[in-house]
Amino acid sequence: MSYQETAEFYSDLYDELFPILRSITGPGLRQSYDIFGRYMPLEICSFKSGSRVFDWKIPQEWHCEDAYLLDPEGNKVADMKRLNIEVLNYSEPVDRDIELDELQNHLYSLPDLPAAVPYVTSYYKKRWGFCLSQESRDKLRPGTYKAVVKSEFVDGTLDIAQTVLEGQSKKEVMLSSYLCHPSMANNELSGPLVLLGLYNRIKQWPNRRYTYRFILNPETIGSLSVLHMLGEHFKENMVSGLVINCMGGEPDELVFKQSRNEQGILDKLLPHLNRFGYKHSNIPFSPLKGSDERQYNSPGFQLPVCCVSRAFHTGFDEYHTSLDNKEAMGIDPLLDSIDKLEQIFLAHEQCATFENTCPYGEPNLGSRGLYPTVSMVTKERERQASELNDMRMLLNYGDCEHDTIDIANLQNKCVTDMQSAIGKLEQQSLLEMV
Amino acid sequence: MSYQETAEFYSDLYDELFPILRSITGPGLRQSYDIFGRYMPLEICSFKSGSRVFDWKIPQEWHCEDAYLLDPEGNKVADMKRLNIEVLNYSEPVDRDIELDELQNHLYSLPDLPAAVPYVTSYYKKRWGFCLSQESRDKLRPGTYKAVVKSEFVDGTLDIAQTVLEGQSKKEVMLSSYLCHPSMANNELSGPLVLLGLYNRIKQWPNRRYTYRFILNPETIGSLSVLHMLGEHFKENMVSGLVINCMGGEPDELVFKQSRNEQGILDKLLPHLNRFGYKHSNIPFSPLKGSDERQYNSPGFQLPVCCVSRAFHTGFDEYHTSLDNKEAMGIDPLLDSIDKLEQIFLAHEQCATFENTCPYGEPNLGSRGLYPTVSMVTKERERQASELNDMRMLLNYGDCEHDTIDIANLQNKCVTDMQSAIGKLEQQSLLEMV
Amino acid sequence: MSYQETAEFYSDLYDELFPILRSITGPGLRQSYDIFGRYMPLEICSFKSGSRVFDWKIPQEWHCEDAYLLDPEGNKVADMKRLNIEVLNYSEPVDRDIELDELQNHLYSLPDLPAAVPYVTSYYKKRWGFCLSQESRDKLRPGTYKAVVKSEFVDGTLDIAQTVLEGQSKKEVMLSSYLCHPSMANNELSGPLVLLGLYNRIKQWPNRRYTYRFILNPETIGSLSVLHMLGEHFKENMVSGLVINCMGGEPDELVFKQSRNEQGILDKLLPHLNRFGYKHSNIPFSPLKGSDERQYNSPGFQLPVCCVSRAFHTGFDEYHTSLDNKEAMGIDPLLDSIDKLEQIFLAHEQCATFENTCPYGEPNLGSRGLYPTVSMVTKERERQASELNDMRMLLNYGDCEHDTIDIANLQNKCVTDMQSAIGKLEQQSLLEMV
Repeated sequence: MSYQETAEFYSDLYDELFPILRSITGPGLRQSYDIFGRYMPLEICSFKSGSRVFDWKIPQEWHCEDAYLLDPEGNKVADMKRLNIEVLNYSEPVDRDIELDELQNHLYSLPDLPAAVPYVTSYYKKRWGFCLSQESRDKLRPGTYKAVVKSEFVDGTLDIAQTVLEGQSKKEVMLSSYLCHPSMANNELSGPLVLLGLYNRIKQWPNRRYTYRFILNPETIGSLSVLHMLGEHFKENMVSGLVINCMGGEPDELVFKQSRNEQGILDKLLPHLNRFGYKHSNIPFSPLKGSDERQYNSPGFQLPVCCVSRAFHTGFDEYHTSLDNKEAMGIDPLLDSIDKLEQIFLAHEQCATFENTCPYGEPNLGSRGLYPTVSMVTKERERQASELNDMRMLLNYGDCEHDTIDIANLQNKCVTDMQSAIGKLEQQSLLEMV
Repeated sequence: MSYQETAEFYSDLYDELFPILRSITGPGLRQSYDIFGRYMPLEICSFKSGSRVFDWKIPQEWHCEDAYLLDPEGNKVADMKRLNIEVLNYSEPVDRDIELDELQNHLYSLPDLPAAVPYVTSYYKKRWGFCLSQESRDKLRPGTYKAVVKSEFVDGTLDIAQTVLEGQSKKEVMLSSYLCHPSMANNELSGPLVLLGLYNRIKQWPNRRYTYRFILNPETIGSLSVLHMLGEHFKENMVSGLVINCMGGEPDELVFKQSRNEQGILDKLLPHLNRFGYKHSNIPFSPLKGSDERQYNSPGFQLPVCCVSRAFHTGFDEYHTSLDNKEAMGIDPLLDSIDKLEQIFLAHEQCATFENTCPYGEPNLGSRGLYPTVSMVTKERERQASELNDMRMLLNYGDCEHDTIDIANLQNKCVTDMQSAIGKLEQQSLLEMV
Repeated sequence: MSYQETAEFYSDLYDELFPILRSITGPGLRQSYDIFGRYMPLEICSFKSGSRVFDWKIPQEWHCEDAYLLDPEGNKVADMKRLNIEVLNYSEPVDRDIELDELQNHLYSLPDLPAAVPYVTSYYKKRWGFCLSQESRDKLRPGTYKAVVKSEFVDGTLDIAQTVLEGQSKKEVMLSSYLCHPSMANNELSGPLVLLGLYNRIKQWPNRRYTYRFILNPETIGSLSVLHMLGEHFKENMVSGLVINCMGGEPDELVFKQSRNEQGILDKLLPHLNRFGYKHSNIPFSPLKGSDERQYNSPGFQLPVCCVSRAFHTGFDEYHTSLDNKEAMGIDPLLDSIDKLEQIFLAHEQCATFENTCPYGEPNLGSRGLYPTVSMVTKERERQASELNDMRMLLNYGDCEHDTIDIANLQNKCVTDMQSAIGKLEQQSLLEMV
């Protein structure tokens, strides 16, 4: 097993990525892309600050050199360099003395989770602030505090990163994860790490029916930018999409959120596989929770983009707090996620809609060596007929209206069991993918 | 409460309308329209005798001055002036002596209900006759009777009456009741009285999404005439229709007969409301029973016209007899019907199909003051998110394919609970009704 | 009862047809057509050897004068003149001495059914061979055998035979059976004999709504040839098709295999009739078993062709062996099959989609003598309303979208019970078949 397949590799990469102060724009995001770029050939696409993306405007870059809050005794009660979520993400600059009463308006903490520091952002309204645990906040004494945020907003770009593995068909599978949170584990780094793992696996397949596009982007504004650039391309070519996040944590099971219209191949494949021993769960689409799949599934696009995670959909207490760390996430669940997702996409490769090129009557299979030339009915022959039956089903239902999952369902078998028959008929040019 | 909202008002109006000798044409019908015209601005539309209406011909007006049947002793065994259903409705004139044996061919009675006088009509074949109770008929002795009907058939018009309350949209709700039976209570006057009550309520709503059209017409030939005049207009604009009759009697429950194709808003709303506490019943369309909804639902029109009544669909013994009187009908059930129908049409106002005007990705709700600008996940916020969730659902499914009932169903809530979110998004021009 | 309706007739015909050495081409097939041609006016359509039919090529005619296998002692261990399936059907000529070891490659027998001679063909690869029981084969002693097949392959034609009974409509019902096996009973002669019986019945109907086409053809290559000639005609006109075979044997029940798309009238009628006392069974289409219906249901045609048989779909041990003989088949089941199929096609005559020619409102039935001109509600009248109700249903749903089976289902009655109402409305030109 190569190093890149090991838990050690993912652990090392995690440790390198975790401390970086990311936001939806700026140097932390680019630095993170550079690290992933060592292992997959990422192309960076940039969108200028201030340009419009549908109903939104690309925000300026946020550069934050330092941020801390001193109590009346000069102790750092918040310090970005200790834990980078202690500064309100996208905070405007400040350097002033302030009384505790007024300061309270700039502090964020969680009464329900008194030991945790919350992760808070204010991208679309200028504010300054600090995040701290409720326990720390309760200990603050009246007096004069000093609030320092050495940040600036700079015209620059919002960046997304992508790479493509070409397949026999231009029809495309899109896999994406977001990369914009600072020091968060499960609800941040788990997604890009699994995406990288899947890239490494799919790159090694001997052939690919579909083209695979891998995308890293800042959440929401990033997927909107992706859609601004590729929306029409996706409408034409995408057969399945998957937004990947929260791939660690305790639950053993992958949970897939279906796409809005449930018309993608993956939407259809996932419950089919469940009937034949796969253990994931499926929940319907909703625009109320989740991540970038909401943008892909907006009414103007309605793309077949699903979302996968472990704990996210049921919620986990550490979500968006300092408790979402490497220990809570774990490295092993990431490797398990990569394995399970690869198996699913291997099955996905057998899913296609075909046109029978000899649709008028049955083709003469005997003349192609696919059918016995002596016609004698014996029980033995009937027992051996499974592959021949697959071929007959594929040819009869090769009408551009049934896909291979439909045909497998008609036989009450898993689509992966038809791989051999599909291959022989494609080789004989009796089936052509539509 | 104004007089027009009281039981007394409806009781007085009933007493004024009951004795009038109505038929499908003629002075009794016009006189009745005049009385309703005091309380709603009715426009009268007239169709000339003899003109064609689809497969039918407008009949002449029937003017009947007097009608009675004298027994050999000179007693009036039938007398239109005592009870106007004692003359066969639309009877031709007669003035002759006649032996009992021959007379029997001109008498109508009900062996199953011996005390009741039946209400009988012969619009489309010329006949003369009298209606009497089976008890009276059994007492008739052989001898020479005198039959007098002082009627004439006059070229004139068939009249319908309507009024419209405009709404923001040209899309239209049609409400109709028939007014052609002589002294009948539940199966006649209850319908127009409830229609008037609904008019008074809807007129007072501060704004109306839909346009409401109220129609009074003689049954069958009248609704055919309405269709002849407005059929194409209805095909283009009608979102729901409702034929109202038999609104009195004992049963507490309104029973709605669905339209033929179950494609109207009302068809969809009625069972939706049942899931959230409304108590009415719904039965499927049938062309075998009922009233004017059969014409609206004929294959050439297939309009979304439902029918509502209390007892009619299950039948009631008094139907089309002298027993269908004020006592059997009651006034209170009419007021209850008005209340219930108003509630249903208030819910109907929240039912519409919208187009999201920012369909590419999610719109930026924060910039419009509809979304918090600080992103911090707390349990408290999740509890308050109901209206925001409604907005997200309305925007995501604002695709011209889902209406607000669909969207409410997706959330397992009543469409009336989304009123606030609908209003805010319409105000921001993020939703436009299609 | 005429002779042609008797069991004796079918028994005599069977005896004449059984010994003929048929194949998919050649003199045996033509001789069999000639015999059927005495009782139905068959038109013969011929396709030249070597011409292409879709993905196939018409094979040469096989003429086989004699075939036998002599053991070292000169005994005939196989002899075409004793039982014509003892020669491999479509065997190439041979005349040589051969040792037992080598001869074994040319022998066919059934270890599972040691007393039976199998029926084996090799149409699409040139071979010679003999079929014998496993019991006989086991007794063969080493030594020199003499194998003689006096056959030749001749450029000629492949022939199909058809006849048509015209109906009021050009819409067509196709009934077919195959005729290409040599001495086989249930899985050969039962089908054409029942087809002939149905022809005799349908010819005698006083009128026919539909046109009926009866076809005899060699299996597979014959139905492909039929499609080559009539495929476009069928696409335009066929409302139902039925491939008939294996109509004898023990099971009392007819089993229908539905067509691929289940869009034919027969597909819809068969389960409808089951709800009203008919006892046949229905199984879904599959391209894996069966006969010519596989060609008719191929993706390029997708014709509404069902298949009917008794034992075939569940399998029977005698299938394609010398045990499939008159005794196993029986004559009585053929007569029973003819009766049952006639009943089903009589019901099929009531199945059609109609357009109401007066679709705007209800037509005036009273003016046509179809409705009472006096309107008086009595219980007695309601009880008599069944036919009138049928008429109202047929008119309201005479919208080109509902057929008579749909309308019968809406009333929970059998389509055959609406015959009278259908007839009256067609006579009045209120309904027109579409």
